Amino acid sequence: MRVCERDAQDLAVGLLRGYGVPEKSAQIQAGILVEAELRGHPSHGLQRLPRLLRRIERGLADPVSQGEFRWRSEGVLEGDGLRGLGPVVAFAALDRLLERVGRTGVALAAVSNAQHLGMLAQYVEAIASTGRIGIAMSSSEALVHPHGGTSRVLGTNPIAIGVPSADGAPFVVDLATSEVSMGKIHHHAAIGRPLQPGWATDADGRPTTDAVRARDGAIAPFGQAKGYALGLAIELIVAAVAGTPFAPSIRGTLDAEAVCNKGDIFLVLDTCGSTDLLRRIADYLDFVRAAPSADPETPVSIPGDGARRRRTQAANAGFEVDPGLWARLNDLSLHKNLSRRETPS
Amino acid sequence: MRVCERDAQDLAVGLLRGYGVPEKSAQIQAGILVEAELRGHPSHGLQRLPRLLRRIERGLADPVSQGEFRWRSEGVLEGDGLRGLGPVVAFAALDRLLERVGRTGVALAAVSNAQHLGMLAQYVEAIASTGRIGIAMSSSEALVHPHGGTSRVLGTNPIAIGVPSADGAPFVVDLATSEVSMGKIHHHAAIGRPLQPGWATDADGRPTTDAVRARDGAIAPFGQAKGYALGLAIELIVAAVAGTPFAPSIRGTLDAEAVCNKGDIFLVLDTCGSTDLLRRIADYLDFVRAAPSADPETPVSIPGDGARRRRTQAANAGFEVDPGLWARLNDLSLHKNLSRRETPS
Repeated sequence: MRVCERDAQDLAVGLLRGYGVPEKSAQIQAGILVEAELRGHPSHGLQRLPRLLRRIERGLADPVSQGEFRWRSEGVLEGDGLRGLGPVVAFAALDRLLERVGRTGVALAAVSNAQHLGMLAQYVEAIASTGRIGIAMSSSEALVHPHGGTSRVLGTNPIAIGVPSADGAPFVVDLATSEVSMGKIHHHAAIGRPLQPGWATDADGRPTTDAVRARDGAIAPFGQAKGYALGLAIELIVAAVAGTPFAPSIRGTLDAEAVCNKGDIFLVLDTCGSTDLLRRIADYLDFVRAAPSADPETPVSIPGDGARRRRTQAANAGFEVDPGLWARLNDLSLHKNLSRRETPS
Repeated sequence: MRVCERDAQDLAVGLLRGYGVPEKSAQIQAGILVEAELRGHPSHGLQRLPRLLRRIERGLADPVSQGEFRWRSEGVLEGDGLRGLGPVVAFAALDRLLERVGRTGVALAAVSNAQHLGMLAQYVEAIASTGRIGIAMSSSEALVHPHGGTSRVLGTNPIAIGVPSADGAPFVVDLATSEVSMGKIHHHAAIGRPLQPGWATDADGRPTTDAVRARDGAIAPFGQAKGYALGLAIELIVAAVAGTPFAPSIRGTLDAEAVCNKGDIFLVLDTCGSTDLLRRIADYLDFVRAAPSADPETPVSIPGDGARRRRTQAANAGFEVDPGLWARLNDLSLHKNLSRRETPS
């Protein structure tokens, strides 16, 4: 079914408010999920909301925490999320980094004990919109097999990079170092779509295209040995800098049973500051877009172009949401309001 | 033919000394090239030396410069290599970063106007051996086509990441964001070996496995759209932070005609500093090595394992060098010594 941005945001904010999230935090959290829907990434959208609400209900997520921060050194901020909402804690960290980087030129935040961030793109885009370069990395549950391996050993270990450009359109890359995200596998399972060959193994380590079976198996790293190497490097960097566990011990982003113990890293870099830099970047990106393409029907594109196009369309025409999910969110909202009315307070 | 480390180092140092490079710098530069040979990466080894010597001869490379540095901000070092040797300028930058990072926790160097670095692995390994995380990125000549494109638009844009680990064996990833390096294509062309399908296009944008034809064509990005996205991000980061040109305007790492105008970025990060961190990293890496493998004959390996194994072997038994290259280096050395004796000084 088709849903418009406003309705989705209002429903999500209302639900979060019902679970004790303050208005401003609810807007931030809902915005991250709805923005993922607008950009065509439902795996990081509203389907994550029911789990988050259960986590709040069970005390695994704290609806009001903004996190606690201290500077480990002049350029490195350490954040304890105190079980707070991922986006709320992350933006609190970014505010501090962006203030500090004017002096240090480079600044890093290492955050632990916060909930799932949603799409990383939005954080590095926020950094890039201030004229700085942003890099974000997260660790996650063991879901990815090593190159040449068959079992879950690595997280999907996403990385996002935002670089400022002219015309108010920063360059943004956001990718899991797995061939696909587990969110996408779950989404395929939910809508009954098969996986592409090479994406995943089943629980016994055999290659499979069955999304339901793949949920208990392992996802391939992207890009063979090189993608595996980068994913493993991100695994080590996040654990080493944030002091968080490795993938096999990580819990709490795909369940409502465990405290979330993954780590998040945010890096902000000043550019060289030359006056025509943003124009040069935009011109180079246009040069890449204009390069000859292998298929004349499909011009070369820049990462983020597709998401931007989808966003513009969806902002006007709305976006597709699984009717079962939408009904479930509305039910949750109804029950929450009923139970609130029934609870004397 | 088989060559031993000592002979290769002595020959390279002697040659560099003959071209006016001071002893210490010659040892550093030769060491970087010979180390690449020991690790089984001849594309980044001695075959790069004759070109570097020609560059010195023509004034494109300065044999004595150590680079000039200034702190752009508390954590960001700007280096003008003054046409100096890549490794000499890079290690001068690293010395300064490693001194600074104790206070700032994160520090970055943006270097321009220095010669080719050789394998990036060795710089991040040097950082990791001090207990910090090192990340290095370089820009380079346009050799790589975009995902879905056919012509040279991007550099091979290598990235290396070093993470400290226990047992004195840091984790090191070093990869070009192209499917292969142009050095490897040239090496294949030199020894008459065909390329793997999908590696490259020819000058007309058609897929080819002919290494000679591919030298005038474009290399594919690794890992399809994701590898392309990361390579493009590195292209933008290096240009934006170092203030250097984009790939289509870069010259001087594959020729002896132009000043070298690529950029190099070095990032040093403190870890969280927990006492058992290095042990935990080493144990996790062993856990990954022990994961079930798809092919029982080929256990899962960690990036850098192969290079370390090859290095140990080559340090004992020597390494293979193309006889033509070895003869050429010896000829160059002979002529240099003759011409020095003939030149009254």
